[in-house]
Amino acid sequence: MANFLSIFTMRNLFVLSLALNLSLIMRGFYEGEKHAPHGFSAQKADSGLEKEAHATQRTLVSLSSYGQDDGEKLINLDHGDPTMYESYWQQMGEKTTLVIPGWQSMSYFSDVKNPCWFLEPEFAKQVVRLHNLVGNAVTEGRQIVVGTGSSQLFLAALYALAPKDASEPISVISAAPFYSSYPSMTDYLKSGLYKWAGDARSFDKEGPYIELVTSPNNPDGFVRHSMVNRTGGILVHDLAYYWPQYTPISSAADHDLTLFTVSKATGHAGTRIGWALVKDPEVAKKMIKFIELSTIGVSRDSQLRAARILEVMTNSSQNPGRPESSESFFKISYHLMAERWQLLREAVNGGRFFSLPDFQQGFCQFLNQVSQPQPAFAWLKCEDDSVEDCESLLRGHKILTRGGRSFGVGPKYVRVSMLDRDHNFNLFLKRLASIQT
Amino acid sequence: MANFLSIFTMRNLFVLSLALNLSLIMRGFYEGEKHAPHGFSAQKADSGLEKEAHATQRTLVSLSSYGQDDGEKLINLDHGDPTMYESYWQQMGEKTTLVIPGWQSMSYFSDVKNPCWFLEPEFAKQVVRLHNLVGNAVTEGRQIVVGTGSSQLFLAALYALAPKDASEPISVISAAPFYSSYPSMTDYLKSGLYKWAGDARSFDKEGPYIELVTSPNNPDGFVRHSMVNRTGGILVHDLAYYWPQYTPISSAADHDLTLFTVSKATGHAGTRIGWALVKDPEVAKKMIKFIELSTIGVSRDSQLRAARILEVMTNSSQNPGRPESSESFFKISYHLMAERWQLLREAVNGGRFFSLPDFQQGFCQFLNQVSQPQPAFAWLKCEDDSVEDCESLLRGHKILTRGGRSFGVGPKYVRVSMLDRDHNFNLFLKRLASIQT
Repeated sequence: MANFLSIFTMRNLFVLSLALNLSLIMRGFYEGEKHAPHGFSAQKADSGLEKEAHATQRTLVSLSSYGQDDGEKLINLDHGDPTMYESYWQQMGEKTTLVIPGWQSMSYFSDVKNPCWFLEPEFAKQVVRLHNLVGNAVTEGRQIVVGTGSSQLFLAALYALAPKDASEPISVISAAPFYSSYPSMTDYLKSGLYKWAGDARSFDKEGPYIELVTSPNNPDGFVRHSMVNRTGGILVHDLAYYWPQYTPISSAADHDLTLFTVSKATGHAGTRIGWALVKDPEVAKKMIKFIELSTIGVSRDSQLRAARILEVMTNSSQNPGRPESSESFFKISYHLMAERWQLLREAVNGGRFFSLPDFQQGFCQFLNQVSQPQPAFAWLKCEDDSVEDCESLLRGHKILTRGGRSFGVGPKYVRVSMLDRDHNFNLFLKRLASIQT
Repeated sequence: MANFLSIFTMRNLFVLSLALNLSLIMRGFYEGEKHAPHGFSAQKADSGLEKEAHATQRTLVSLSSYGQDDGEKLINLDHGDPTMYESYWQQMGEKTTLVIPGWQSMSYFSDVKNPCWFLEPEFAKQVVRLHNLVGNAVTEGRQIVVGTGSSQLFLAALYALAPKDASEPISVISAAPFYSSYPSMTDYLKSGLYKWAGDARSFDKEGPYIELVTSPNNPDGFVRHSMVNRTGGILVHDLAYYWPQYTPISSAADHDLTLFTVSKATGHAGTRIGWALVKDPEVAKKMIKFIELSTIGVSRDSQLRAARILEVMTNSSQNPGRPESSESFFKISYHLMAERWQLLREAVNGGRFFSLPDFQQGFCQFLNQVSQPQPAFAWLKCEDDSVEDCESLLRGHKILTRGGRSFGVGPKYVRVSMLDRDHNFNLFLKRLASIQT
């Protein structure tokens, strides 16, 4: 597998990425049609690699257009909108197309025999297959609970884990910098069951608590473990970014309650599908109850679509010796992320204005090689003494990011999405370089 | 339009319904295939009406099988699972098939220019078109907010309408019998913003309150208005069943905040899509915020599917003079419901054991005729003195229903779904008759 990877240089992959992008732009012309075209077949995607020379010629045109920046366009890197992945899925063509006749999946019920009655069996099957391939989570002895994105599952977990008859709400904590939505998601309904209690590092209240462990962490990308580790602590592991393109897969996660989401794994954010792997059946039952009460289940259409996407993703990454391994989602995504991080570090190191976290490399069991952490967000720090608020500075250059205060730290930091389309990412690099000169 | 309707006798429609059902069963044999078949085209659906004689021959076979009841099969009429509509959508064939390529609708954002950034423009367009055709709700000057079913929109409405800095949670009330999930949905998170306060008829607390008005009402089917009508009252209108197949459309609803759901309108419960029509943009903004925090938007795949279904539904019911009006969703559904209610009343009137509500007929602006209320649920009462708990009695006959206590009234009542598949509905009638003999 390592041999296979060495065939691709950064430059090869960059060119491939641009080629993919060009075809996306070309395809854009057809988007106005009512029914999406299917002509862009898997065969064409295969031949794309062999015709690299031809692709290079074509991409020179688009490459030059990426150089343009009239300085007026607002680049929104505030959200982690994973549009970078569109090119890959377009290349995979109609293999991933979902066809749903009008009379299908009309009932509320997906599987009356499963405690999670709204879980599509095909989606559950593909989740298990994917984890078995990647080796990032133990699925045996777990109840899979599907959710409307992992946000819903996060709330379901709070509901399931909070004691029902306690005299006061259970404390919910996470080590800063923490995911910026945790405080508002926990507190927006002023629940009597749970309450945001801030940074896990400074948490010293007696009694039970729920600690949220996001690993790799959003926003800073570091691998994390529980910070408190005290009696009465209940852990929720958000492993949305524990995939080979973002971080080395060191072992299969084996926690009590683990959350994943399609949006960060495959890039299908608009599909709103996440899943939880839950060890205790009673906790799973309460999460299921939460989803019944809040949305009466989870879109079956979206689960079927997610199942198809996961199936193709797993197929693409199996059997490294076979020709289709050149389509491996994880390998291609790993190299795209590697390329972006390299370009970003070059831009940042070109001056003394900004800095980025340094990560330790590790051995990735899935890629079977030493690999680099290359998070879905860049946790950028304004080092210059003259800048107090890094978010404002970048906004002045028409780059929208999310400032450190949202994550429980100071305004010297910003979180920048690394998953936007090539065009926006390249504009971002250009503007970052211009700030430093 | 009235002339057109008179062409169909109850018997014609019953036979048509059974024919549709047979084809559904036949089609079931092909369901094992990975890609759903498209061969069942719209043309075939059209010719179904003309070939009624042939269809009658075929359905005699299945009709006799409907007569079988080994008494062992559990009939679950507890939920309002709208599987009755599968036959219609199957007949409509591939017109309603949604095709989603793997690279489409990947972004979180559906429409960055809309305050409801996760609302698919095509879905919004079809919602307006449908209301304009049916005349059941004013859409002008309203913000459409899409939700993961109307459950999510109900919770979003409570969040949006509850004062944020009140000393105590606002009271949430509804007149009994009320939708059984209202109390648990309101209270499951022990919110400090709102609290279930029971039956609107006996509500006498001072101060602001939110009254839920479900019309036609679930479970009993009656048209409703606010029961309290006092200063400080805020109304949420749940019009899930305000469609011509269930109740006469007397006028276009013109409330501050109105909820609808695809599941009861078209039968696509598994799609989990509802919508709210909201007059006050500030209230709409808060509802949108709620959906951001709870699920970061609403499945785009499901919205696109719902848009397709609504489009075909509206097209089918336009232009009564054109041949496709024989496919009119609302006319066919109206007659199916009429037939079911007639059969149910015959079964109930066959003894003195049960009773049903009596409804007043009214003029339906959409059907352009006097029409009968024929609710999606039957609110059945056990009249016999020997029966204290009607739900238990029916459970003893392997019929699952929901007892009156869940709706805030006594156990003499049960709610029975009228929207199940023909086979189950017919078994239910058979068992109901057998209880009375």
